Amino acid sequence: MRKADLIKTPVEHFDITQHNVVPLVEAMRQMAFSARDLARAADIYDRMVQDHDCGIILCLAGSLISAGLKKVFAEAIRCRMVDAVVSTGANIVDQDFFEALGFGHYVGPEELRSGMFDAELRELHLDRIYDTLIDEDDLRICDDTIRQIADELEPRPYSSREFIKSMGAYLERKGCKTADSIVWEAYRNDVPIFCPAFSDCSAGFGLVAHQHERGERAKVSIDSAKDFYELTQLKMRNPTTGLFMVGGGVPKNFAQDIVVAAEVLGQDVPMHKYAIQITVADVRDGALSGSTLKEASSWGKVDTTFEQMVYSEATLAVPLTFGFVYHRGHWKTRTGRRWSQLLEPLADGQTRGAEAPLELVKNP
Amino acid sequence: MRKADLIKTPVEHFDITQHNVVPLVEAMRQMAFSARDLARAADIYDRMVQDHDCGIILCLAGSLISAGLKKVFAEAIRCRMVDAVVSTGANIVDQDFFEALGFGHYVGPEELRSGMFDAELRELHLDRIYDTLIDEDDLRICDDTIRQIADELEPRPYSSREFIKSMGAYLERKGCKTADSIVWEAYRNDVPIFCPAFSDCSAGFGLVAHQHERGERAKVSIDSAKDFYELTQLKMRNPTTGLFMVGGGVPKNFAQDIVVAAEVLGQDVPMHKYAIQITVADVRDGALSGSTLKEASSWGKVDTTFEQMVYSEATLAVPLTFGFVYHRGHWKTRTGRRWSQLLEPLADGQTRGAEAPLELVKNP
Amino acid sequence: MRKADLIKTPVEHFDITQHNVVPLVEAMRQMAFSARDLARAADIYDRMVQDHDCGIILCLAGSLISAGLKKVFAEAIRCRMVDAVVSTGANIVDQDFFEALGFGHYVGPEELRSGMFDAELRELHLDRIYDTLIDEDDLRICDDTIRQIADELEPRPYSSREFIKSMGAYLERKGCKTADSIVWEAYRNDVPIFCPAFSDCSAGFGLVAHQHERGERAKVSIDSAKDFYELTQLKMRNPTTGLFMVGGGVPKNFAQDIVVAAEVLGQDVPMHKYAIQITVADVRDGALSGSTLKEASSWGKVDTTFEQMVYSEATLAVPLTFGFVYHRGHWKTRTGRRWSQLLEPLADGQTRGAEAPLELVKNP
Amino acid sequence: MRKADLIKTPVEHFDITQHNVVPLVEAMRQMAFSARDLARAADIYDRMVQDHDCGIILCLAGSLISAGLKKVFAEAIRCRMVDAVVSTGANIVDQDFFEALGFGHYVGPEELRSGMFDAELRELHLDRIYDTLIDEDDLRICDDTIRQIADELEPRPYSSREFIKSMGAYLERKGCKTADSIVWEAYRNDVPIFCPAFSDCSAGFGLVAHQHERGERAKVSIDSAKDFYELTQLKMRNPTTGLFMVGGGVPKNFAQDIVVAAEVLGQDVPMHKYAIQITVADVRDGALSGSTLKEASSWGKVDTTFEQMVYSEATLAVPLTFGFVYHRGHWKTRTGRRWSQLLEPLADGQTRGAEAPLELVKNP
Repeated sequence: MRKADLIKTPVEHFDITQHNVVPLVEAMRQMAFSARDLARAADIYDRMVQDHDCGIILCLAGSLISAGLKKVFAEAIRCRMVDAVVSTGANIVDQDFFEALGFGHYVGPEELRSGMFDAELRELHLDRIYDTLIDEDDLRICDDTIRQIADELEPRPYSSREFIKSMGAYLERKGCKTADSIVWEAYRNDVPIFCPAFSDCSAGFGLVAHQHERGERAKVSIDSAKDFYELTQLKMRNPTTGLFMVGGGVPKNFAQDIVVAAEVLGQDVPMHKYAIQITVADVRDGALSGSTLKEASSWGKVDTTFEQMVYSEATLAVPLTFGFVYHRGHWKTRTGRRWSQLLEPLADGQTRGAEAPLELVKNP
Repeated sequence: MRKADLIKTPVEHFDITQHNVVPLVEAMRQMAFSARDLARAADIYDRMVQDHDCGIILCLAGSLISAGLKKVFAEAIRCRMVDAVVSTGANIVDQDFFEALGFGHYVGPEELRSGMFDAELRELHLDRIYDTLIDEDDLRICDDTIRQIADELEPRPYSSREFIKSMGAYLERKGCKTADSIVWEAYRNDVPIFCPAFSDCSAGFGLVAHQHERGERAKVSIDSAKDFYELTQLKMRNPTTGLFMVGGGVPKNFAQDIVVAAEVLGQDVPMHKYAIQITVADVRDGALSGSTLKEASSWGKVDTTFEQMVYSEATLAVPLTFGFVYHRGHWKTRTGRRWSQLLEPLADGQTRGAEAPLELVKNP
Repeated sequence: MRKADLIKTPVEHFDITQHNVVPLVEAMRQMAFSARDLARAADIYDRMVQDHDCGIILCLAGSLISAGLKKVFAEAIRCRMVDAVVSTGANIVDQDFFEALGFGHYVGPEELRSGMFDAELRELHLDRIYDTLIDEDDLRICDDTIRQIADELEPRPYSSREFIKSMGAYLERKGCKTADSIVWEAYRNDVPIFCPAFSDCSAGFGLVAHQHERGERAKVSIDSAKDFYELTQLKMRNPTTGLFMVGGGVPKNFAQDIVVAAEVLGQDVPMHKYAIQITVADVRDGALSGSTLKEASSWGKVDTTFEQMVYSEATLAVPLTFGFVYHRGHWKTRTGRRWSQLLEPLADGQTRGAEAPLELVKNP
Repeated sequence: MRKADLIKTPVEHFDITQHNVVPLVEAMRQMAFSARDLARAADIYDRMVQDHDCGIILCLAGSLISAGLKKVFAEAIRCRMVDAVVSTGANIVDQDFFEALGFGHYVGPEELRSGMFDAELRELHLDRIYDTLIDEDDLRICDDTIRQIADELEPRPYSSREFIKSMGAYLERKGCKTADSIVWEAYRNDVPIFCPAFSDCSAGFGLVAHQHERGERAKVSIDSAKDFYELTQLKMRNPTTGLFMVGGGVPKNFAQDIVVAAEVLGQDVPMHKYAIQITVADVRDGALSGSTLKEASSWGKVDTTFEQMVYSEATLAVPLTFGFVYHRGHWKTRTGRRWSQLLEPLADGQTRGAEAPLELVKNP
């Protein structure tokens, strides 16, 4: 195997604007099983977009960006179909920001999945995600870019949201090398991105390098409690919310928990009014990733009137659900929340979160 | 449904010391499928315990403690079969520490799984994890205990490891209300516990309350980069390592990544020499939780000589594998790493990590 | 719950002719995971249709017809995209033939999935398939129709293929009450349908009633060995074959086995040249349903050049793959095999299977 | 790879008599998830054995015998813990009868699972079942033995049950080459075995060869309707029944359906009073294999008072559940049904099924 042969076919991102799947999804509504569930999930997402009180939180777990879903989510941000993102670190840093730096993901030959070639891949500095390849050398540059960004920041605790905003600013400044980037679109549309386990990815490598160099000196740290506090504040300021969850894991748990966190802070907020999850995780091992949204309602986190789980791998269900809502077009009359503005300290050093009128949020 | 009726049958934790499963597991070695894999995983774990150079990292994801596996892991820590723990927050805070405060998990009636009673459960302040119930009022006390611990700490960034050590100290001081506690045993045996997504649990609620009260004043923050840095340092000081992973998610990713992080810090360390994962996650969605350990070897994280995935829900496979190694008894001649001592600042304010001879680690 | 309310929304069958999914599937080709696999499966199916030497065998397991996929398969038969069908009995008798008699499947309210209403459903004579309902009284009429068909046949052993042909003749004679029927289209297009476990469905009820009434008198029996013999003969007469398998189970095993059966009969035939399987079954329990097509190649059953498994629930993947091949349109220049003619005894009582020139098969 | 190296380690069958798992299973009763379900399933099976009115039907799907579970089921038959078996053909013919002829299954090297060596295996005449190997040449002898048995039988339609009884008689006559055989034990204990898709295995190859040789002459055929009729008669004669299902597929469907079949024949019988299923199949694709036992109750097939699904691969759950019931020992005072005697024609050519008093069944 030669490295050049292995990385000649790039992953291409699905473009929801090019495929009007509305009739297709509507034809699934009176079928059964996953098709029916998918159609109902698409309807609920469409309803979220039409509910102008609703803040929409997108949760991402799994290797979604490397799989060709980057443009779907970037488009959704551009089209004000998403107001906040909660994600695993890999999607945001190792995959989206990585591509924004000019690097790519590659379609690996089918036989690599057997696992019999992984030692060879390691020799070639190629990392494998199931059927997809990444150049490890490129990834190291991504790690190092994170380190540079950290080096340039004032040393203090940051929420991952703040740090990711700096990554967006970096792209704005240096130029984004790709037409679509979640980090960059989010930066430009004031959509906050949270990675509650931010060290668990390329960002971790960069930050460890930063902290190692700083030694006993003041350094940047990532305060995951601040992440939670910030997202909770958004819920408190915008009580009607909906979740679109792709996969489970930390993002699902984190985003669901803010309802309870608001209550802990003394403000009763309604449960998430809408909730969709696309997953293949099994319910029977009791783990959160596969746990039903009804179970979440016992915890007071998710209302059950508009909830739908779709049993499907994401590369099939995400293009259809997002494409449906895109082509239904109700986002055209929706105002994005621009929640980043709500969270960011004003020039005078105050957080305007608590005081700012909600109207300000709605009409940035 | 009356609340009292629903929480009268406590979950009972499996006691590996009471069941010599060695013959049972050995009888599975020449069967096929999960039985054979389970026997091989048990053999590899036993080999880890016999390899006196090997530091053993236990990774926990899923609702394991509420499911009756607490005593297994507490025993493993006591018996020097584990040198560090990387876990989701729920296992450590909402479930283990929660029980250490005197609260319990309850066997729910079978029909609750249908999801049809979750609204009633919410009214009763009962949270459901598939077939198991928790009193939400108790959980709020747990949240608040975390807040109190945070309030008493010097305001600065902490690794989750440091914070969890404070939770252990709290139990030591106030009394642990249960015979077995992972947090407490880890505290007493200098076994560090890392929760890389520490806000994603009851700890998050307590810390949000703490930060909210502090307002603009100095406050405790949780530095997830520091977690990663600390665990990487352990790998650098103790290059031979093995992973026992129950479930996937952030703990799996985090623990695997330290091999690369060490390299980023300029020290070539070997891949994890041993790796076991118990999971029901599917490999075909490309997500990390179900990704093979061979795939991890393409990333340079896990060696493939002694790796084994076991396709089983954890409540079946964990008692058998840990019970096997317990009754094989090689832990009796093993010296625990007492890694917490390696990480903790000495009285003079220096980290002795870099300087301390490895012998010190081996013979605390 | 009132019965009338529960069965007012019929399942509607997906119509591949109405949705040109070619661009959609092509856009998935350079994504990853299930999307990429689905695109490759669609390409392989398209290749089968273009390979004029290839006889195409469709294998059906799972509740596919009740789920809204009937019209897809009926269309594929009409369009000469399928030359033989191997199915579980339920799809063919309880679901397709049942609808051809004028009965329907109904979209059940979401809460039925909880399983908490099944006793009530039983009282109402409603049978549940996950989220779908059937009127048990209608099903009894279907059972009885099978009994009548058996009563009118000459008493002797029949292959399920022969019996199902009689069901098609029944529909031809009495009128098919629905625009699309697999049984009827297959009858009219000389596409043989095999149900190797034919008693395992509504047909079983009718045949048991028939045999019970006949007592010691001569009766119709269903010879599953004859089924196997017939399908093997088709393979021997038409050595190049491809399988499109939806689900696993008996149909998968049965259709794969004919390669070996031909060899047992003294004729070396090539392995199935093409093989696609859509399934969510796990590979790790060692059962056939989830076993890889590579594994089948160790048995000498399936070639591995053009094989693809797609990890997806069928209601999502079947419309996309069949729709792709339909709109690519290569079936327009393909000649159907009309294999039923090959198997059926001629007027003079001889089977023309062994003697008839293959040309005859190709140009009925 | 050399063939001799690949088949030197035989699969060894688990021996429930050697492992008293009662305390282990009892310790799982108040855990959660699969452990709790497994303990409850074991309790229900134990209850079946204690209910002297209950006829126990064991359903087998998946590659269970090759996986090392043969001795478990043979022991269960010997100990009167099973009154009838419904199975896929492979377990009974290709695997159990195959071993009774003196052939074996072999532990394959781990890397074979990658699928990368299947072409080599084919060259070596080695068939792979996930991690296990079979010598194809041996399998052909098994096929041919079936042909011989068919050749010696009077040409007429047989139920698979009748044919399998002849296989038992063959072993009795020629000598069973292994200490444990389901077919042989069933023969000697008058336990009927049904394979409703009997051609879907090695038996199919033998029978196809038989029918091919016979040409137009009278031949043995396998009447799957007769299978269904016979099992239904057993239900009618012994209304209280319990199912222990390993896997799903045709055996599950077939055994559940007999309740309805009895009704079709004009006799109201109770639903199966007890039902256990061990499976990893997912419920969400709507297929029967993973469908809940509650769903079956909507069809009037399974009562829901004593039903339990266990989410586990069979090699883990079968030894524990059967071992539990074996060591509880209630089978010692149970009388086997000896149902084969009920079905078999008497010397005078009459079926005594309908007339014989039930007492005769209970005390053969």
